Amino acid sequence: MRVHVAFTPDEAAEAPTGVVIDVIRATSTICQALASGYERVYCAAEVEEARALAGGLEGAVLGGERRAVKIPGFDLGNSPSEYVEPQGRAVVMSTTNGTRAIVTAAGRCERVLVASLLNLAAAVAAAAAHGEDVAVFCAGVQGAFTLDDAYVAGRVAELLDGASSDAAEAAIRLSRSFASAEEAFHLSHSGRNLHAAGLDADIAWCARESVLEVVPRFVGMHGTAAEISL
Amino acid sequence: MRVHVAFTPDEAAEAPTGVVIDVIRATSTICQALASGYERVYCAAEVEEARALAGGLEGAVLGGERRAVKIPGFDLGNSPSEYVEPQGRAVVMSTTNGTRAIVTAAGRCERVLVASLLNLAAAVAAAAAHGEDVAVFCAGVQGAFTLDDAYVAGRVAELLDGASSDAAEAAIRLSRSFASAEEAFHLSHSGRNLHAAGLDADIAWCARESVLEVVPRFVGMHGTAAEISL
Repeated sequence: MRVHVAFTPDEAAEAPTGVVIDVIRATSTICQALASGYERVYCAAEVEEARALAGGLEGAVLGGERRAVKIPGFDLGNSPSEYVEPQGRAVVMSTTNGTRAIVTAAGRCERVLVASLLNLAAAVAAAAAHGEDVAVFCAGVQGAFTLDDAYVAGRVAELLDGASSDAAEAAIRLSRSFASAEEAFHLSHSGRNLHAAGLDADIAWCARESVLEVVPRFVGMHGTAAEISL
Repeated sequence: MRVHVAFTPDEAAEAPTGVVIDVIRATSTICQALASGYERVYCAAEVEEARALAGGLEGAVLGGERRAVKIPGFDLGNSPSEYVEPQGRAVVMSTTNGTRAIVTAAGRCERVLVASLLNLAAAVAAAAAHGEDVAVFCAGVQGAFTLDDAYVAGRVAELLDGASSDAAEAAIRLSRSFASAEEAFHLSHSGRNLHAAGLDADIAWCARESVLEVVPRFVGMHGTAAEISL
């Protein structure tokens, strides 16, 4: 099995199996929501798309943030801890970088799995079970590399233990250069933004490894939104 | 000074000062050619563009490779050692990834410098002398990340010693994970291709740090070719 990593969605990478990471915080929140009992999560890039979609879905709650703060009129923000007690059957999330990464992976892979540290072991086992090459897509921020996603990509590549591309080798070496996930997350742009917003608890939450057994999968597009479920 | 790294040309990055790296082998060869006495180097993405350009330039030699082998009808391949004794006044190089990286940087930066390990200290000093933010652009291969360019980007970022973006921090950590440039180059996709072509001597040549004092600069476009001189 060959393992490749795209540190940003624009980077060239394709494989039968895709794994998408936006660890702070979209894919952590997706994993938590589905593990908690929500039946599906819809990822929309724009706030108005999310509102319109939620308006047409029974039992949907609206979640998301801009600059780490809950969007006005939305039911929930983007902290995974807000998704432990289901308040409906589905979540419609507004996440720009996460949606872009999922849609990119869906265009290049036969199947797309959603990974965070929370479901690391389960996601790696599911990707390995397909027995085909794997491309790991980091969401990044606005087309740029982020340390937090790259760290998780390194953990995924290390556990997959396949033939690493240059990028997968780099991701493994990068993740090994940190003493812990929390160290990497705190140093990252996304982590510093959470810290500035008083959301250090979210960093600690997202830095826990392999505590959820779920493997969220991309089901298909629902208009312009990516539908995710188990 | 803020320091950013784009591991592939498509990655988001802009700054007043751009530094372009395609260490195996285009930017190493450019540095060597200009240090040896060639007055300018033109980088063309396509072979036929290079041929057409060289046909209209007096004293131009044609250089370049495809799959590590000299292009039929060209004067020189892409080994920097072939450029120690000038055989004309200018070099027209065919280099797909290198040209793309230079053109990308030229579109996003006020000035673009060309770096390799050979001229590392000189390029870093020139970039720092401008006193403005720096974006380092790795050429990569066909839009994908490569270890050899990322290693050199890490060395540039480390020596610039500015405020690192997430990508610059990752590049520094990556370069520190190798015992030497040669170790990184041998492990890289580009280095393995050179090894397979019997060109290990080129890896050793390109892995020497700060042995040339030149700082090649992007002058402007000459049709579809990027013109480089001191």
